[in-house]
Amino acid sequence: MKNRTVGILMYESVNELDFLGPYEVFANSDYIVRVPLFPPHVAIDPLQVDVRLIGKTRGTVTCEKGLRVEVPYSIDDCDNLDVLVVPGGSGVDAVSADAEVLAWIRRVARGCEWTTSVCNGLFILTAAGLTADKKVTTHWAALDALRGTGATGPVLEDVQFVRDGPLVSSAGVSAGIDMALWVIGQITTPARARLIQRTMQYDPAPPYTAEV
Amino acid sequence: MKNRTVGILMYESVNELDFLGPYEVFANSDYIVRVPLFPPHVAIDPLQVDVRLIGKTRGTVTCEKGLRVEVPYSIDDCDNLDVLVVPGGSGVDAVSADAEVLAWIRRVARGCEWTTSVCNGLFILTAAGLTADKKVTTHWAALDALRGTGATGPVLEDVQFVRDGPLVSSAGVSAGIDMALWVIGQITTPARARLIQRTMQYDPAPPYTAEV
Repeated sequence: MKNRTVGILMYESVNELDFLGPYEVFANSDYIVRVPLFPPHVAIDPLQVDVRLIGKTRGTVTCEKGLRVEVPYSIDDCDNLDVLVVPGGSGVDAVSADAEVLAWIRRVARGCEWTTSVCNGLFILTAAGLTADKKVTTHWAALDALRGTGATGPVLEDVQFVRDGPLVSSAGVSAGIDMALWVIGQITTPARARLIQRTMQYDPAPPYTAEV
Repeated sequence: MKNRTVGILMYESVNELDFLGPYEVFANSDYIVRVPLFPPHVAIDPLQVDVRLIGKTRGTVTCEKGLRVEVPYSIDDCDNLDVLVVPGGSGVDAVSADAEVLAWIRRVARGCEWTTSVCNGLFILTAAGLTADKKVTTHWAALDALRGTGATGPVLEDVQFVRDGPLVSSAGVSAGIDMALWVIGQITTPARARLIQRTMQYDPAPPYTAEV
């Protein structure tokens, strides 16, 4: 199986779980090869997935809720990606106005198998011109804004993620986990995605189930 | 409502989502006050929740899959916490052998409303002597080891988290999200936990549902 490079766009005030959910999923793609969690009869094909945090420049980014994370790659370091993940967060507007970053997104997306967004990260892809006439989704609180400004295709709600061609947009924050699991299952096999899910013990059961 | 301080223990090779899931949940406790996602009729009481990443020393920690995160607090900075979160990861053994960190855990846990673990972070609490005769759980792949070595009380499996008095242990990795939502619902109200869940759009739907 061909090794892959996954790039996650990082910027000031990116939401923490928006980027970290997909990071954990994709990083587990080869972690499950290296760490023997499963019994020997579970065959796991070798696969290296290089997950890169990529900023406009290298350095340290302060996320939306204050987490400070090192960003080891700049957009100038990364011309070829197989998967691009654009997380959301309160810093989306600044990135959506940054012509240099948008040009990089357009350029790398051309070579990507999958171009993805989490939450309102979709607005960055829209600013880059990659969502025209596409079926998309975003965080529930941003659906009206999306319909009002950026979207020229159908805006879906009450879904975890939406695929339209090589574009996959997910709903808010934690929905990026479901989206990334789906993408790795498409790149590899659903069985491998299930091993990753099992490694993350992702059997979610929110404890207070009544509606707000 | 009394403001709270949540401390998350950080160490070399901590699992990324183990610590970040609870971080996101607890940090949203006051984020939802500051950011108007909900319509005005949804009353949200003011509440500050100070979420601190705490290491044996301040500095930068390299997590299990390579993420590098700044840790702004040391154990010497933090004598009083309301909630302690001990995440898991491949670095658990080293921490479990660190008498200074274990002594700190014992000391702060005495003042905590809730002492919690994610994944094999439970082994650190066990090494600190805080799980004797308690009902506990951990990552599925660590259940046998837990039964063999540390546990003197019932070890539960196939549950997202287990509460025994002020001790709450959760299953692997992403189960920390469910656990943290439950804890914040106990500290505040289930309604507030639901608002946090909604903010994180945590309506999980793993995409490949067949069993491994």
